[in-house]
Amino acid sequence: MEQLHGGDIYRNKVEYDFSVNINPLGMPKRCMEAAKKGAELSVHYPDCQCEELCGKLAQKEEVPADWIVPGNGAAELLYALCYAIRPKKGLIPVPAFLEYERALLAAGGIPEFLYLKEEEDFRLGHEILEKIQKDTDILFVCNPGNPTGTVIERELLYSIAERCRQTETVLCLDECFLPFLRREKELTMKHYLKEFPNLVICRAFTKLYAMPGLRLGYLMTSNRELSGRVKGCMQPWSVSLPAQLAGCAACEEEDYVKRAREIIEIERDYLVRELSCQLTDKIYPSEANYIFFKAGIGLKEVLLKQGILIRSCENYRNLSEEFYRIAVRPHEENRELICRWRACSMRV
Amino acid sequence: MEQLHGGDIYRNKVEYDFSVNINPLGMPKRCMEAAKKGAELSVHYPDCQCEELCGKLAQKEEVPADWIVPGNGAAELLYALCYAIRPKKGLIPVPAFLEYERALLAAGGIPEFLYLKEEEDFRLGHEILEKIQKDTDILFVCNPGNPTGTVIERELLYSIAERCRQTETVLCLDECFLPFLRREKELTMKHYLKEFPNLVICRAFTKLYAMPGLRLGYLMTSNRELSGRVKGCMQPWSVSLPAQLAGCAACEEEDYVKRAREIIEIERDYLVRELSCQLTDKIYPSEANYIFFKAGIGLKEVLLKQGILIRSCENYRNLSEEFYRIAVRPHEENRELICRWRACSMRV
Repeated sequence: MEQLHGGDIYRNKVEYDFSVNINPLGMPKRCMEAAKKGAELSVHYPDCQCEELCGKLAQKEEVPADWIVPGNGAAELLYALCYAIRPKKGLIPVPAFLEYERALLAAGGIPEFLYLKEEEDFRLGHEILEKIQKDTDILFVCNPGNPTGTVIERELLYSIAERCRQTETVLCLDECFLPFLRREKELTMKHYLKEFPNLVICRAFTKLYAMPGLRLGYLMTSNRELSGRVKGCMQPWSVSLPAQLAGCAACEEEDYVKRAREIIEIERDYLVRELSCQLTDKIYPSEANYIFFKAGIGLKEVLLKQGILIRSCENYRNLSEEFYRIAVRPHEENRELICRWRACSMRV
Repeated sequence: MEQLHGGDIYRNKVEYDFSVNINPLGMPKRCMEAAKKGAELSVHYPDCQCEELCGKLAQKEEVPADWIVPGNGAAELLYALCYAIRPKKGLIPVPAFLEYERALLAAGGIPEFLYLKEEEDFRLGHEILEKIQKDTDILFVCNPGNPTGTVIERELLYSIAERCRQTETVLCLDECFLPFLRREKELTMKHYLKEFPNLVICRAFTKLYAMPGLRLGYLMTSNRELSGRVKGCMQPWSVSLPAQLAGCAACEEEDYVKRAREIIEIERDYLVRELSCQLTDKIYPSEANYIFFKAGIGLKEVLLKQGILIRSCENYRNLSEEFYRIAVRPHEENRELICRWRACSMRV
């Protein structure tokens, strides 16, 4: 497997990893303790029904427990969803997370891309509606966008869900990064799951609770026939015991999420301010825990020499080698990034 | 998900679990320590190339590292293999592990079953050869058989692999339990991987190192085109960090495997001897770490009341409610099983 995503700390010498969009607060202590406890208990099989986890998630998300399908990270669920639907055609506005396309192709589907416009900051607009046709079996939308960090407002999302219902298209709405936003409640579509049985919302513990190594994500849908098929496309024990226990512990961490949101707002402002001072060519307006920008070609390599890994977006469809993404990290790390970057750019 | 397999300690009150075929020695200490270390490091993504793990496995299994495809338990890999092949028809000698059939169906394939004969102890014989035809896209064989514990000799396996090569059938050979056998070296087909590019061997850490909660298994094949397709049918991060680290640690545990084999032989003999004394109607000749037998209907429920969970084989295709399987456990547990069972049967 070639490296398709960020986070390759295994073949790079990395002091600070800005390439993955993880909560800057790090994993909550009680999640880590729970994961360790899970390791100790792992002489047993995990609960293939994830009963306790689904119960806690149901409370947190305010949906019935049987609307939830947990998986080995959100990525696994994208694949299982595609295997369950066996879409002939899928629509993907790009740039987007590469796994939408890979999952679709793995299930034998053909991706159709909507190339978002650079002059519109790669924002999804109403033009998507006419692209959704009877033969569109699945549509992938990410809110906020990845790598852009821009937000799709509720009104447009509602129109998309409605249009998808008309055309019998499954709308896979990726809200993995949404809980990082203060506006989460205003933007989430989870309260429309009942109204739209064609809506599947994808969420992850990976980013929000900084536990990507444990692998835990979940789908939510009111469509029990569909969720049954998704489960039928996965092994029964896909969620490990450390992940189940850490996930249960994470559901208690309300204050941690609140603190993360505050820090991300402050630090994102700090980074944007600093990046604006001659370091970048353009910064896109992000509401998320990461920042998307244009800068000189070769920046990734230059920073890597300084021990800093950032995400080059050159392998995103519809982007090129001038585009980059960085995560919003704790202040010391952000400051370090700016310092080292400034030092390099002065030397050039 | 209804309970399809053993090991449901989550909805049963279980003191001793004989329903899952786990190494009676329990998880090696250094694997557990490694898994905990993995939990601590899980603020990072796992290595999606599993580079260290594949390197160690390659040494242990004496195959090139790029013949190995690790996954989130062997079960995930059965699905990925089916998604990669998209078989129209698959052949499954039964009784067999239910996930072969589920994986095949999930990928849109139609299972054809070879019903093994009770009067032949459900042993796979040469009759399988004529069942393998041009339209057989995949064949699942488990050695030793599950739930029977009977062994397929090398000569028959070689003929099956040869026949499959002729018919362009992928032979998925499940060797998950083989390392528990003293005769492993004599029986494994891994040294024929190069000769048979249509051969895929499936192995797991789950059973051998008693770490089912962590989820770790792997495929081995010399067919790089096929393994590339299998990887394309999975998310890049399917193996968690705790699993990768525990797996690396497990590769060092040669002595542990040797000790397990010795204990299993002694304890299996003990159990067979005791079970023969009026507790069972027939015991099948197992070389594995589990024992398959016939006994009175309702035995599972009776023992469960005594805090002991055994595997009823009634939901195995080609079996019925008189068939059961128990794992070979440490002596104290085995003795406890026999005592409590004897007490019940005397009361009846």
